[in-house]
Amino acid sequence: MDQIRQVFADLPAADAEARAAAEARNGQLTKPPGALGKMEELALWYAAWRGEARPVLRCPQIIVFAGNHGVTVQGVSAFPSDVTAQMVANFSAGGAAINQLAEAFGAKLDVHALSLDEPTEDISLGPAMSENAFLEAFNIGWEAIDLETDLLILGEMGIGNTTAAAAMMMALYGGAAEDWAGRGTGLDDAGLKAKAAVVARAVHANSATDAISVLRCLGGREIAAMAAAILRARRERIPVILDGFICSAAAACLHAIDPAALNHTVAGHLSAEGAHDKVLKKIGKEPILSLGMRLGEGSGAAVALGVLKAALACHCGMSTFDEAGVSGA
Amino acid sequence: MDQIRQVFADLPAADAEARAAAEARNGQLTKPPGALGKMEELALWYAAWRGEARPVLRCPQIIVFAGNHGVTVQGVSAFPSDVTAQMVANFSAGGAAINQLAEAFGAKLDVHALSLDEPTEDISLGPAMSENAFLEAFNIGWEAIDLETDLLILGEMGIGNTTAAAAMMMALYGGAAEDWAGRGTGLDDAGLKAKAAVVARAVHANSATDAISVLRCLGGREIAAMAAAILRARRERIPVILDGFICSAAAACLHAIDPAALNHTVAGHLSAEGAHDKVLKKIGKEPILSLGMRLGEGSGAAVALGVLKAALACHCGMSTFDEAGVSGA
Repeated sequence: MDQIRQVFADLPAADAEARAAAEARNGQLTKPPGALGKMEELALWYAAWRGEARPVLRCPQIIVFAGNHGVTVQGVSAFPSDVTAQMVANFSAGGAAINQLAEAFGAKLDVHALSLDEPTEDISLGPAMSENAFLEAFNIGWEAIDLETDLLILGEMGIGNTTAAAAMMMALYGGAAEDWAGRGTGLDDAGLKAKAAVVARAVHANSATDAISVLRCLGGREIAAMAAAILRARRERIPVILDGFICSAAAACLHAIDPAALNHTVAGHLSAEGAHDKVLKKIGKEPILSLGMRLGEGSGAAVALGVLKAALACHCGMSTFDEAGVSGA
Repeated sequence: MDQIRQVFADLPAADAEARAAAEARNGQLTKPPGALGKMEELALWYAAWRGEARPVLRCPQIIVFAGNHGVTVQGVSAFPSDVTAQMVANFSAGGAAINQLAEAFGAKLDVHALSLDEPTEDISLGPAMSENAFLEAFNIGWEAIDLETDLLILGEMGIGNTTAAAAMMMALYGGAAEDWAGRGTGLDDAGLKAKAAVVARAVHANSATDAISVLRCLGGREIAAMAAAILRARRERIPVILDGFICSAAAACLHAIDPAALNHTVAGHLSAEGAHDKVLKKIGKEPILSLGMRLGEGSGAAVALGVLKAALACHCGMSTFDEAGVSGA
């Protein structure tokens, strides 16, 4: 655990020189200043973290982590736990949403199934993971990044994991369980009420006093792995597009330790899962998209990858006023 | 002019059978119901207009119309009129934002420069175009569509055309000139105030009593051509992604004649140009994106094309629960 905390002590900065050069280029492109809106800021953010004024996005990587949750015995999901493994098989066969999105936007897709036959413990009774189980999952996330990648997206699959993420956010930020519990894959009103009660019991059953404990006691293997991958990407200066509620909850644990730990990330989308907007406010991120998606798998971030590709195509490919012989304002 | 009005009398419907089949397919895909949010509705809309349950998007077309505006002598733009022709040259050379976006999302790009050396008349003094000039521009728009295309985006370039569009919207929907005039390519406060005064003078100088007169008297050649292309696409059942303020103003004229004339369209984005949100409300469209863009050229719609491609990739490529052996809820 100390090793994880040490990573935070030595986080590299983005490349200020590359950012300044990208800003200078952006100001000369054949468009009124600011006319590409948030697309411009996206290109500048990416340039700063890639350390290039005119960075080309060549090999984006999507990593989906899957895990099972003991808390599903409390009836918190509309789908049975078996679906986690079934969906991993679907990822392998190329039939899930994230497969289509990865192909549409030219991203490599890697899937890591984390001990699916060994669900985490029921968080409504005690910690989800022992230190060893947690570190094992964390290490898998840490090692999962292809260091050649120039853009990372983290996705997840895990029946029950919106319950875990809701408990994490309640432990981290306070408030009532009802503030954080959402409908997940499709709970009705009674199911949502019961889920909130389970979230409250989980927070009370665990005395998670710091963000790493929150990840270990209330999270899950796939959530720990996502947090690890986001942190590793930070250390390697690889830009990350965050996905929805689960991914943001993993990121929020890093943010709680050091807000600068998320400087290399943007929020891909605002999920329809209840509390995602609250998490984004807490970590200070404005979503690129708001399409009412709530699928997980990294799907919202993958759609946002299309926007980033568009932003970089403009930033890198457009002519300057001088090159095009266009008069300025 | 009567010929234009006759088109409205015989507009085809979307394919209800294809829509129903697409809905049935959507309900079987390996995701919780509704989990892809607005992406699902986009795919269903597209299926209905293409008449296929599982439609593949093969040959999107972006058409940019360019025109010059006599009203620029009133000092309504931050850029000189010469920029219209210079940007057309930039389109031809491949250096503009829309070139990069067309390439990024695999769209064909066609550019039509409409009598750039013959600006429309100054709308603050009287009608922009004679009936002949209007019909000429309208016909160019009508004929510009590649009938093999399966998705159409209309863009524009025309220094001064946010003034024209603001006057059109004031004539169509009432309100004050300040409600409709925006900063265009980057006016300061004083410039914005002066522009609003020009818009008010234009509306008072023209007695545009119906939507076609609004297009002719207050619009411009590129705006008339956009309206024609949207209408032609409606007749041919070609789905359209609307761009920002100018494109929506052209569409609003069709909507004023018959709201069903825009059933084949979606709003690609919410532009940062002041009154675009009001126009979208009037024509009953929710934007797919809201990225603070205000460039024109069809650029916002082109970024939204990426979202549509993602939506269709999921709709057409995903496995069903049965195919994947995944348990339902």
